[in-house]
Amino acid sequence: MSTILLHDLVGLSDLRFSPYCWRVKLALAHKGLAFRTRGTPFTAIPAIAGGTGKTVPVIEDGDTIVSDSFAIAEYLEKTYPDRPSLFGGSGGHAMARFVESWANVLHGPIGRMVVLEIHDRLLPEDRAYFRKSREQRMGAPLEQIVARREDRLEAFRESLLPLRLMLKKQPFIGGAAPNYADYVVFGSLQWPRMVSAFELVARDDVARAWFDRVLDAHDGFARKAPATGH
Amino acid sequence: MSTILLHDLVGLSDLRFSPYCWRVKLALAHKGLAFRTRGTPFTAIPAIAGGTGKTVPVIEDGDTIVSDSFAIAEYLEKTYPDRPSLFGGSGGHAMARFVESWANVLHGPIGRMVVLEIHDRLLPEDRAYFRKSREQRMGAPLEQIVARREDRLEAFRESLLPLRLMLKKQPFIGGAAPNYADYVVFGSLQWPRMVSAFELVARDDVARAWFDRVLDAHDGFARKAPATGH
Repeated sequence: MSTILLHDLVGLSDLRFSPYCWRVKLALAHKGLAFRTRGTPFTAIPAIAGGTGKTVPVIEDGDTIVSDSFAIAEYLEKTYPDRPSLFGGSGGHAMARFVESWANVLHGPIGRMVVLEIHDRLLPEDRAYFRKSREQRMGAPLEQIVARREDRLEAFRESLLPLRLMLKKQPFIGGAAPNYADYVVFGSLQWPRMVSAFELVARDDVARAWFDRVLDAHDGFARKAPATGH
Repeated sequence: MSTILLHDLVGLSDLRFSPYCWRVKLALAHKGLAFRTRGTPFTAIPAIAGGTGKTVPVIEDGDTIVSDSFAIAEYLEKTYPDRPSLFGGSGGHAMARFVESWANVLHGPIGRMVVLEIHDRLLPEDRAYFRKSREQRMGAPLEQIVARREDRLEAFRESLLPLRLMLKKQPFIGGAAPNYADYVVFGSLQWPRMVSAFELVARDDVARAWFDRVLDAHDGFARKAPATGH
């Protein structure tokens, strides 16, 4: 079995912050598969593996190239069925799509709180592209988008209530142990943590305790990466 | 195999509106199990099966009594493993708790839009109890709670975005066919539909198309029950 190559987004000081790439890194760690990452700036994505698409993550597993985080998780589950399961069966596979959709909805408000810090931690060649595309998407200068973000923090924290209610029943979305559904939501919160010290989830929140448990999973895999936040 | 008895909440004209009971009724239909229901007003719940608890649903399966909708789904899955699966494996079992938590968060805003219509459709003996307990919980007279509900409709509809995003990938939360996760969310939306013609989900919303598919499931089981809304 060859070592899998993951093309991962990269910023200054080798910072790895992409939520979608974090989902895949945890999925690889969960499967216990040997992998290495190659840091890729936004503007170099089109050149990956001879031009496979517009986004990372992309993995190369021998001759197989797979892009899109969920498709990669499905590929890993199918290709390495003897390794710990990412979905826990067909129901989990399907429901993970719901969890993914819920987590992706968080990206709007999260982005509007940390987009300037993402920009400032990008490699110089990415900054003009990033500023232009995000200002176009969000309809304002980055500085203005993040202004008074404190005022939006409470609403964001309230939006985590489903996770908080679930944690009254079990320690992980996957039940007694984390699975791909946890990595999906984790990736969404690891993203701002990598670029910002702004505390999106309060220290005393049970959702933060869950996040810390995922940071600790697989021998603290996700905690070892240098981060800006705690 | 004996016919399962479900203690189901009941209002005027035999109206059955409890979201938790709907979850269980769909779970029973999914399993293809023979069951009958016994309509129970709120104030008669403490007397069910010799005093089992404070809430419905409660099922009696032979000598076994189970209350709490999720516990009932778990009981059915474990007791009738040869019938179609409600969870699709351990991952789905765990993730259904997340979907349940997400759906239960909707109950706050839904309740604040239809609580007066629930009250008006209760049996006479339930009304004083219901008004008092709900006004205490919600902090205002029922009439005031539902006032200007039109103003809150857009925010409620926005909160269904995770479901809408997921529906771009697959027709049900359970994947190609509905499972317990679908019945959980369905129950939360069937509840206002039973008591009110106020349209919480717009006719042209993909979430409404999903809801209609669940209404049609199992030979239109959930569509056959008399409802106030469409």
